[in-house]
Amino acid sequence: MTERLAYFTEENSAEAVIDRMRDAKNPRLRAVMEVVIRKLHEAVKEIEPTREEWLEAIRFLTDVGHKCDDWRQEFVLMSDTWGVSMLVDAINSRRPTGASENTVIGPFHVEGAPEYEMGANICLDGKGEPMVVHGRILDVDGNPVEGAKIDVWQANDEGFYDVQQKGYQPDFNLRGVFRTGEDGGYWFKGVRPKFYPVPDDGPIGALLVELGRHPYRPAHLHYIISADGYDELTTHIFDPDDPYIGSDAVFGVKESLLATFNKVDDLARLDEMGFGAPFFWDVEFDFVLASAAAG
Amino acid sequence: MTERLAYFTEENSAEAVIDRMRDAKNPRLRAVMEVVIRKLHEAVKEIEPTREEWLEAIRFLTDVGHKCDDWRQEFVLMSDTWGVSMLVDAINSRRPTGASENTVIGPFHVEGAPEYEMGANICLDGKGEPMVVHGRILDVDGNPVEGAKIDVWQANDEGFYDVQQKGYQPDFNLRGVFRTGEDGGYWFKGVRPKFYPVPDDGPIGALLVELGRHPYRPAHLHYIISADGYDELTTHIFDPDDPYIGSDAVFGVKESLLATFNKVDDLARLDEMGFGAPFFWDVEFDFVLASAAAG
Repeated sequence: MTERLAYFTEENSAEAVIDRMRDAKNPRLRAVMEVVIRKLHEAVKEIEPTREEWLEAIRFLTDVGHKCDDWRQEFVLMSDTWGVSMLVDAINSRRPTGASENTVIGPFHVEGAPEYEMGANICLDGKGEPMVVHGRILDVDGNPVEGAKIDVWQANDEGFYDVQQKGYQPDFNLRGVFRTGEDGGYWFKGVRPKFYPVPDDGPIGALLVELGRHPYRPAHLHYIISADGYDELTTHIFDPDDPYIGSDAVFGVKESLLATFNKVDDLARLDEMGFGAPFFWDVEFDFVLASAAAG
Repeated sequence: MTERLAYFTEENSAEAVIDRMRDAKNPRLRAVMEVVIRKLHEAVKEIEPTREEWLEAIRFLTDVGHKCDDWRQEFVLMSDTWGVSMLVDAINSRRPTGASENTVIGPFHVEGAPEYEMGANICLDGKGEPMVVHGRILDVDGNPVEGAKIDVWQANDEGFYDVQQKGYQPDFNLRGVFRTGEDGGYWFKGVRPKFYPVPDDGPIGALLVELGRHPYRPAHLHYIISADGYDELTTHIFDPDDPYIGSDAVFGVKESLLATFNKVDDLARLDEMGFGAPFFWDVEFDFVLASAAAG
């Protein structure tokens, strides 16, 4: 007999399961599973599910699993819409005061986007309301960071990334890589982004409906900013006037990441930027990198 | 803007997600999800997973989902081996002191098993060590319960149920339904059961290995006992001499469900039972039903 703990009871349920993992090979796995089992049993004890509710939970998880394939990750969507992805991101990107905050990378980053000169227009099809984004890459003491790599990507004004509309949007539309000079400054042209839904035709979308939630992410631009000696920054900037700015379906918004989108209809500036449109949006945003040592 | 709570932060993460469910249609679903989100965020905050560990968890859940089909339920196996199925069973079968305890039904119950006269042999292929099981169905005051339906099923001495060995075992092998008379007594013949593994060729089996656990369930017989006016009892009786009695992979063992398997080699009794074997196993076990009102 390999008996050690008393038999399983309602009271000792988590301890009985945890005790059984005493011979786990990997101490980290054991520690992780101990927390998982303890919290899971706490949840079940607080919920007191009926047998039918338990079965419903099994069915839900099975449906989520069956929705996953090479192109769709419904468990990531579960993690995103339940705030877990942002929490894991927050835990892994704690930074000193003053440094720019991280947010989730999302599923639409693509390696190998074209590298442009400052001022280039990453909007390759001319659709949407023109936008100029500019600012500086600084260290926490306010000094410019030279040689920072700025990898930016955004959805078009219909709310889709190029990879979601292959053939309709040009390849690498609204993506670009820029490198800062001595002044740490950057600038490029794009289009004003628009809110868009996370994929909501699966079990997670159905759950959002049941919970009275919408699937939308407020308009944003994505950035990965890296420089030697600094902590890599993966973040967005957001349009504070977006109708969903207070209810991002994946909880990615942070107050420090709200930009201002200023409408410019001054003819001289329109001319300077080479826009034929009657107006453009001007967005100024500085990013502050933490030194690698701080992380 | 639909902003109400402050933006998501590491500190307020669970509250930010829970606040978003305020318009849920079903108050029970809202209450359940509130606990799920709160405990899930507590777990993540305690574990502090790296991004890679988070991805590993996503991959694991995806693998569990992909293993599920019409014949295999890997999430149920997860629930079973993590003690959740037994906990849900315990929560839904709290009974007054003295009443027999429930345990999990398992995946091998079949409706429509043949109804037999008391004393019948449910072992249709004659394989294994013969066993006689007998006892009484009582109420909590010790009175016999007349007209109780006893639905019994068990694995053969190789550790397989008939439905797992179709064609090799006769249909309905080691299954039977019996009804008690005025004395509440029951008896039938079978074979001594043997330990067997839960399905361990999937991600849950791989996790058991990592956790230093085995996949075995100790030898047992399954019962569903029902009678008008009484709480239905779904349970097992266990062989206390089984090598896995203290480490059931699904935590189904309860102290009150340990039976005694007595070896009988008395020739007169062997003759009386009509066994040609040199011995048989005698198992006596009484079940006590709680009145339906008590549940």
